[in-house]
Amino acid sequence: MPMTYASPTAAALAGRLNDLRRQRPVVHNIINPVAAEVAAMAMLAVGASPVMAEGPEEVVAVARASAAFTINLGTPTESNTYAMHLLAEAAPGLGRPWVLDPVGVGLTETRQRLAELLVRRRPTAIRGNVDEIAFLAATHAGTGSAPAARGVDAGGETADIIAPAARLARATGSVVAVTGAVDRVTDGERVFSIANGDPMMTRVTGMGCALSCIVGAFLAVGPDDPAAATAAALATVAVAGEQAAADAAGPGSLRSAVIDRLYDLDPDRLADSLRLEVATVASAVEA
Amino acid sequence: MPMTYASPTAAALAGRLNDLRRQRPVVHNIINPVAAEVAAMAMLAVGASPVMAEGPEEVVAVARASAAFTINLGTPTESNTYAMHLLAEAAPGLGRPWVLDPVGVGLTETRQRLAELLVRRRPTAIRGNVDEIAFLAATHAGTGSAPAARGVDAGGETADIIAPAARLARATGSVVAVTGAVDRVTDGERVFSIANGDPMMTRVTGMGCALSCIVGAFLAVGPDDPAAATAAALATVAVAGEQAAADAAGPGSLRSAVIDRLYDLDPDRLADSLRLEVATVASAVEA
Amino acid sequence: MPMTYASPTAAALAGRLNDLRRQRPVVHNIINPVAAEVAAMAMLAVGASPVMAEGPEEVVAVARASAAFTINLGTPTESNTYAMHLLAEAAPGLGRPWVLDPVGVGLTETRQRLAELLVRRRPTAIRGNVDEIAFLAATHAGTGSAPAARGVDAGGETADIIAPAARLARATGSVVAVTGAVDRVTDGERVFSIANGDPMMTRVTGMGCALSCIVGAFLAVGPDDPAAATAAALATVAVAGEQAAADAAGPGSLRSAVIDRLYDLDPDRLADSLRLEVATVASAVEA
Repeated sequence: MPMTYASPTAAALAGRLNDLRRQRPVVHNIINPVAAEVAAMAMLAVGASPVMAEGPEEVVAVARASAAFTINLGTPTESNTYAMHLLAEAAPGLGRPWVLDPVGVGLTETRQRLAELLVRRRPTAIRGNVDEIAFLAATHAGTGSAPAARGVDAGGETADIIAPAARLARATGSVVAVTGAVDRVTDGERVFSIANGDPMMTRVTGMGCALSCIVGAFLAVGPDDPAAATAAALATVAVAGEQAAADAAGPGSLRSAVIDRLYDLDPDRLADSLRLEVATVASAVEA
Repeated sequence: MPMTYASPTAAALAGRLNDLRRQRPVVHNIINPVAAEVAAMAMLAVGASPVMAEGPEEVVAVARASAAFTINLGTPTESNTYAMHLLAEAAPGLGRPWVLDPVGVGLTETRQRLAELLVRRRPTAIRGNVDEIAFLAATHAGTGSAPAARGVDAGGETADIIAPAARLARATGSVVAVTGAVDRVTDGERVFSIANGDPMMTRVTGMGCALSCIVGAFLAVGPDDPAAATAAALATVAVAGEQAAADAAGPGSLRSAVIDRLYDLDPDRLADSLRLEVATVASAVEA
Repeated sequence: MPMTYASPTAAALAGRLNDLRRQRPVVHNIINPVAAEVAAMAMLAVGASPVMAEGPEEVVAVARASAAFTINLGTPTESNTYAMHLLAEAAPGLGRPWVLDPVGVGLTETRQRLAELLVRRRPTAIRGNVDEIAFLAATHAGTGSAPAARGVDAGGETADIIAPAARLARATGSVVAVTGAVDRVTDGERVFSIANGDPMMTRVTGMGCALSCIVGAFLAVGPDDPAAATAAALATVAVAGEQAAADAAGPGSLRSAVIDRLYDLDPDRLADSLRLEVATVASAVEA
């Protein structure tokens, strides 16, 4: 699997966690009420400074005062949908990296239309589960019919999603990240595969949303290689989750433990624990 | 206390937890921001797949993609009130079981009017505390003057509520569930009494709201006997709460522990721990 | 540091916690979705009965049914901003003590304008971090140019804020509370300094918001001396946080532990642990 692109090592990804903690970027998030607290906790734990705001009157100003922003479709209302559009429209002028989390995009036409318009605004990264990314790939990159939605917390295998995700990345110019049993990040050329994490993490509500916010924080401090920055975010949360799950009695304890681990995760330990593969899309799809 | 109706055993109620875990129903919830996370955590822990949505544009579509839905009056706004009305109006056509949680109904005229309209839409079940159910019974079933509201987290004795709750159930056709020191569920004929739980549970915010969502999940997999399904939901949460409280250092720990216990609660252990009585309303009121 | 004003002892402040637990005041809060749950948990733990409501149609009625209320600028939207104005306008007629938490006031013009109007409605107390109080002091009490906002979770030193805070208190008639490494409460004449707490508390999202709600609860039961009531609230949370942090593995555990400690905090133990100084503003500024 040799590549013509930079193929960051586990240590290089882990080093980005140091950058984040040193710079403490302010990250603005339009998020949903279910995930708002755990996302803010996770961001503070990892070293970022979260701001949640969704008033149409102020969202652009808040994003301007931030180093990155995220838009999460978790609970679209008339008011926050308007704010999402204002913010995405302002994105090119703001020059900030931003993340789209297309929560439950296949669930309703409302979300589908909203995601469609937001994807066209060229988010720096799109982070979703297998269903959500398959849906966007089908609608934006012509990869076949969209799958039926199975709720908003689907986990599962991710090997088959690599090709559609890479096509979505090439069609949009966004880094595409898919979380599941193995997490995948692709810029259309490279695929980062991260085989860490724990199935119980899918029982901690809002962890996917929190992860998308953390992607925003890593993008803020890693503009040199957005795919590597995104992969570093996924690596950090997957390893923290894996270590937290090792002695969690259930998802309630795990919610606390993963925040604790994000707070004290040592970059060297992160590098040691990371099961990372970086490959070309072509070789990953054949594998 | 012999009855002419089916009088499910503790084992039969506990068996419904197996059905829930096998079917993993998607349940849609219009809920408030205070309880949104803990309700989603509790639903994931027990084996359901929660979706929280309150955009008027999409609520009916989300409910159509779900096996049941719940409406919680916790923080009515212009936008979510409109969504509640749309959804309740669509309920007969959707053919999904649904739950009304009349949070703080006695607190303001806004909530009173809203609850009045929603109760008329015939929820499958109504779940509240003593004050809330007494208020609805007074306004919908003529059981006397409504009590003054005492905040939204009242606990307390529930023996005196059996008769009003049963009249409310007969007047509306809804199963009525009242939580307190002893939980009561009635369809107007039978009363299920569950003497489990722990007083410290009243200090875990959102547990009542979470319970109403879990009632929705049990209704989704137990359409054969909505009162028994509702009782199974209350039994599950009461026993998990009791076991969690046994070694919780306070309400913060209890919040995590009850999620852990919901996750690993064994149906056999649930049946063994359950202090359940099923009686006719007539005999329960005389007792 | 002798004073002409009452200079409450640690024991006197701690005694207010007993009053709170005995009276269990209902406190109404307009708050943000990030902090809603932890604030409700903290209020229940300390012995208050929280109600969160922000529908413009009902906010005044909810406040009328409560013993105090709080307004938090965390996530202003068109709807909740309208509710804030209605409530602040009704405040003199309601005759309830109330607290303003000017979250991120320096972040956007929206928040600045909103805070400006609310401060003119004469809140009983204003509780913020150093940046927020410095900003309000600059705009309302002419203490020099407002500092640049640094996100919503800034901690830090508080000695230099005493003079501006005292000027703000005198200009507005509000008690002003500033949290940081040492917490300060001033009514423009006295300064209460509380040297408890733990830096990790700044990683528990919503703790500042929760504290403002708890100030509301202490004001409800302590109308005799609002500054002392406010200081008692800060003392309670700081000592609970300090004790919780002593054996918390990280901010996730700390979130649970601080709720547990608020629940079982003994007033005598609070008085013993409290590092309190009460001085005149003049002597505190010179020190």
